[in-house]
Amino acid sequence: MAEEVVLLDFRPSMFGMRVRIALAEKGVKYVYKEENLSNKSPLLLQSNPIHKKIPVLIHNGKPICESLNIVHYIDEFWKDKAPLLPSHPYHRAQALFWADFIDKKVHETGRGIWASKVDKHGMAQNELKESLKQLEEVLGDKPYFGGDTFGFLDVALIPFHQWFYAYETVGRFNLDCPKLIEWAKRCLQRESVSTSLANEMEIYEFVLGYRKLNELD
Amino acid sequence: MAEEVVLLDFRPSMFGMRVRIALAEKGVKYVYKEENLSNKSPLLLQSNPIHKKIPVLIHNGKPICESLNIVHYIDEFWKDKAPLLPSHPYHRAQALFWADFIDKKVHETGRGIWASKVDKHGMAQNELKESLKQLEEVLGDKPYFGGDTFGFLDVALIPFHQWFYAYETVGRFNLDCPKLIEWAKRCLQRESVSTSLANEMEIYEFVLGYRKLNELD
Repeated sequence: MAEEVVLLDFRPSMFGMRVRIALAEKGVKYVYKEENLSNKSPLLLQSNPIHKKIPVLIHNGKPICESLNIVHYIDEFWKDKAPLLPSHPYHRAQALFWADFIDKKVHETGRGIWASKVDKHGMAQNELKESLKQLEEVLGDKPYFGGDTFGFLDVALIPFHQWFYAYETVGRFNLDCPKLIEWAKRCLQRESVSTSLANEMEIYEFVLGYRKLNELD
Repeated sequence: MAEEVVLLDFRPSMFGMRVRIALAEKGVKYVYKEENLSNKSPLLLQSNPIHKKIPVLIHNGKPICESLNIVHYIDEFWKDKAPLLPSHPYHRAQALFWADFIDKKVHETGRGIWASKVDKHGMAQNELKESLKQLEEVLGDKPYFGGDTFGFLDVALIPFHQWFYAYETVGRFNLDCPKLIEWAKRCLQRESVSTSLANEMEIYEFVLGYRKLNELD
């Protein structure tokens, strides 16, 4: 059976980028549908009635929500090509733990910068820098978080690298994470990554628009 | 090799209860170590330096953190007995989605009641009731969330049932979820569940102590 795969997404979204990379790694063809987040489509509202958020992957008519959950699903369904999660349960648990850390710490503190007034940035900036330092320790001297090969945690984190410019420019500070910058350069050499990511300026412009609309500057 | 399994835990914790049930389902023997949350052990701080929270499962010297992650790990490592997650990737993704929903909605709104001043309860009470109603829809007419057999989502939710008395008594309201109450009775008939759960009064007394200490009444 030919697989019918539709992705409801929004270009600058770090969560959407994760799914695009995973689909590209697996070589899955899909129909891309860009959502207007201030006027969400009936298909999005019907496919993710709980959170009403992109990305949603609709596979043979069945919706799957939440980006890490979707990447996990893609890895399990298309398991014969480019495995993303490690095969040993302990290493798998570690990858899932750190991916959750990215959502809880990197995303939340990043949002505390790009979607907040500048005079409320102090704590978020320190926490974000600290979280990135912790991720640098997890990376250690390995080329990828997955070890010698690009894997689940690399997919989970690399979209945030595209947001670094917006964090730093809006927050007028320096993230100071040279090891992650080197790691990101390696990731960006992969076609699955370079063709799936929104670029830094596109994200920055989205952020400027959001800040203007919400009177944050 | 004999498996060395240690659980760092705290009796009334809904997250700890999940892990205890999963270990009981799999018939895994382990050393239980109760933590004093106002004076955490060096072993806890060293095993979970990121979040510093129970439960932590230490398996052959290696720590695994975050309850859903631990239950997932237990299910994968001891895979030959009492499978908890469904075997099809789509059903697995659905179970993981709803388990995450429990953490984001049921836990957070529950906390908005038991760990908050009464005059701030209104929205949390409505959201909690709404979340439980959504879970009743997911359950439908099945005996368990896993279908005919007790599974991952049942493990994820049943500990919260033990907190219902505390939510209702502190909040002076009624959760109004008869289908979940019937489902919980079925779950409590399982030895793995009944021997792993803290009881309602024990939890309520913990909550009263917490509220007194934090001057919430």
